[in-house]
Amino acid sequence: MAEKISFEAPRGMRDFYPADMAWRNKVFDAFRAAGEAAGFEPYDSCIVESYDLLARKAGEEVGDQIYHFFDKSERHIALRAEMTPTLARMVAARQKELSFPIKWTAIAQCFRYERMTKGRKREHYQWNLDIIGEDSVLAEVEVIGTAVDALRRMGLTTDDFKVRVSSRRFLSQLLADSGIAPEKHAQVFLALDKRGKMPDSEIAAMLRDGGLTEPEVEATFRIMETKSYEGSPELVELFRLAEVAGFADALVFDIGVIRGLSYYTGIVFECFDAKGEFRAIFGGGRYDNLLTTIGGEPTPAVGLGFGDVVVTELLKSRLGEDSVSRTGGIAVGFMTDSERDAALRLASRLRREGECVNLSLRSQKPKKFFSKAGESGALKAVFIGPDDVSAGVARMKDLATRQETELPL
Amino acid sequence: MAEKISFEAPRGMRDFYPADMAWRNKVFDAFRAAGEAAGFEPYDSCIVESYDLLARKAGEEVGDQIYHFFDKSERHIALRAEMTPTLARMVAARQKELSFPIKWTAIAQCFRYERMTKGRKREHYQWNLDIIGEDSVLAEVEVIGTAVDALRRMGLTTDDFKVRVSSRRFLSQLLADSGIAPEKHAQVFLALDKRGKMPDSEIAAMLRDGGLTEPEVEATFRIMETKSYEGSPELVELFRLAEVAGFADALVFDIGVIRGLSYYTGIVFECFDAKGEFRAIFGGGRYDNLLTTIGGEPTPAVGLGFGDVVVTELLKSRLGEDSVSRTGGIAVGFMTDSERDAALRLASRLRREGECVNLSLRSQKPKKFFSKAGESGALKAVFIGPDDVSAGVARMKDLATRQETELPL
Repeated sequence: MAEKISFEAPRGMRDFYPADMAWRNKVFDAFRAAGEAAGFEPYDSCIVESYDLLARKAGEEVGDQIYHFFDKSERHIALRAEMTPTLARMVAARQKELSFPIKWTAIAQCFRYERMTKGRKREHYQWNLDIIGEDSVLAEVEVIGTAVDALRRMGLTTDDFKVRVSSRRFLSQLLADSGIAPEKHAQVFLALDKRGKMPDSEIAAMLRDGGLTEPEVEATFRIMETKSYEGSPELVELFRLAEVAGFADALVFDIGVIRGLSYYTGIVFECFDAKGEFRAIFGGGRYDNLLTTIGGEPTPAVGLGFGDVVVTELLKSRLGEDSVSRTGGIAVGFMTDSERDAALRLASRLRREGECVNLSLRSQKPKKFFSKAGESGALKAVFIGPDDVSAGVARMKDLATRQETELPL
Repeated sequence: MAEKISFEAPRGMRDFYPADMAWRNKVFDAFRAAGEAAGFEPYDSCIVESYDLLARKAGEEVGDQIYHFFDKSERHIALRAEMTPTLARMVAARQKELSFPIKWTAIAQCFRYERMTKGRKREHYQWNLDIIGEDSVLAEVEVIGTAVDALRRMGLTTDDFKVRVSSRRFLSQLLADSGIAPEKHAQVFLALDKRGKMPDSEIAAMLRDGGLTEPEVEATFRIMETKSYEGSPELVELFRLAEVAGFADALVFDIGVIRGLSYYTGIVFECFDAKGEFRAIFGGGRYDNLLTTIGGEPTPAVGLGFGDVVVTELLKSRLGEDSVSRTGGIAVGFMTDSERDAALRLASRLRREGECVNLSLRSQKPKKFFSKAGESGALKAVFIGPDDVSAGVARMKDLATRQETELPL
């Protein structure tokens, strides 16, 4: 026997056994269904990207967290940390041919080399929704509304989560109204994004380092107490349209939503569970300058990233760990090898009729068969014994109601 | 404006624009539906694996074609070239807990650093079907039958493809009957696998290098003319059960099917398009020793790998490049900004009723709206003008039949 090697996945990477995969499919199915219902077109690319592209877009946050290496031709390649640079590249490559606005969606595995904490592995899947080429706030409404729809399809209600919404443009305006020069705003955003993660005294120090005077620092903290978005026409419009679309109950205004990445230019949003137990479920906003950073034409855009890890934890906590079953369909078994052909013939016929059929591969005792069928999540079960074959009829049992239906063999 | 960087994907890696993704989804949907119909449970793992695991399993073929690198902790990691080593690892890790036989399926992106030719990129997706823990030939029947079902779901018939089947055990027996010692068989398989790719004179030289005498070389070539599988009980049983299951018309016996990888131990198979224009569509076989090579318990297994590239080329060639449409559903548009709320309200309502709705984000002329709706593949279209809003009723047009239905606004 060969030397034993580690059976563990590499550190920070996940295995999805069938029970895990059932959860993943529940989440992905909701992503796909919500995207399709709202007319987003699926796209994808390879997880391997050129390092240059990722480094250009990544900016302050991702830079040294990228998995990167050289291939045999000394090409510098990397595993994507997010989908947006790739999206920007793909759109820029066909900017002349595409018919804007486009609404695109992807479920993309992304990698970050970082310290691992609860809910933060070195890879995750991120559902992306992007609308490119549209400057009206209807783009934000469609993106947020589709994400809210996905959460509803997973079995959550707006009592379970809230989307906190703000606008960098509005915050900039409030800062400017207090006399803080626009060239200092990027640094202010960076500092304010750390609120809740570090004490306000350190935020204040960051603001001073960014060139703010003491009155300006005080003004900034006062601005963070803003409770009304009435001064922001785009936020007023967003809340009004969300009402029209039927998801206004999911939205709350929160001036404290900044979003870490520097490329957001307007409305920004983050979704959290209502009890505040988990990290952000999804986040996004308007990023009108992204294409120009890689050399494309200026193009308005709104996007959202929705990871699979946090929402799965939330679902398990709210719906129960066992609320997802691995299989459904019909289990077919047989008592002795003499009934094997009959079982295979029946299974094949039921499959052709559109049923999902899990055929046992070995003869077994009825008790063992029915117990395994129940465990596997089958809804119905047919067990074929010698008498059934001679009678030419098998009985299909509904495992919930115990009702039986006859099936000709 | 920033310096322009390359908008191309890295060499050998594919971008999936929405039109490409529509094809991929057609293929993946058939994979998923066929796997589900036959009771295979989905599983997955991360594409990043430990290099040791891949190198152990890879053997002669893959070894130096693996993308591999060191992470910041000097862990030697790699991008998987196939799913089987990962499957073996995951099964070995839970060998005591799993209830065998297990039937597992995955659609796995895999990477190989190799010279690029038509239909061979540096990454592809491979649908995997594996049955582990079952030694009867019913396992082969389920695996091959499920792959045939997937091809049918894609729109192909058994006139379009054939699954060529043989058995390494049978071939070994024929070789042994001709006096060729069992320890030489691995080398014979390796040589015979090259048939069709190099002239028979070179195959003969390989056989001589493997220690075969001239009469043994001649005997080997005679064996390759074998047209009947009657001497192989497992092949007889396979063809009989395929008849019972209803896909015998997809099978042909071909003693020349060897499969490159050394780990196959019994029945082997490869599927080709009937005209012989493309490379193999899928391939697989029985590999009863795989788990022991990584230190697990001996376990019988049958598996299949079905790539996305060749079958997509075949489908485009047989069904037409334009036979897949990007979207369906209902397009909703509006003439002026005064009808925007009504359009959003209608779109939201239709979506809640389960429809897929592509809402235009901008006011537009009806002609432009209907032409774009047709191009996008929408089945129905609703265009809302000022009169519709005052009447409180919009008309939904079926784009195929031109029939109109009224919808209250």
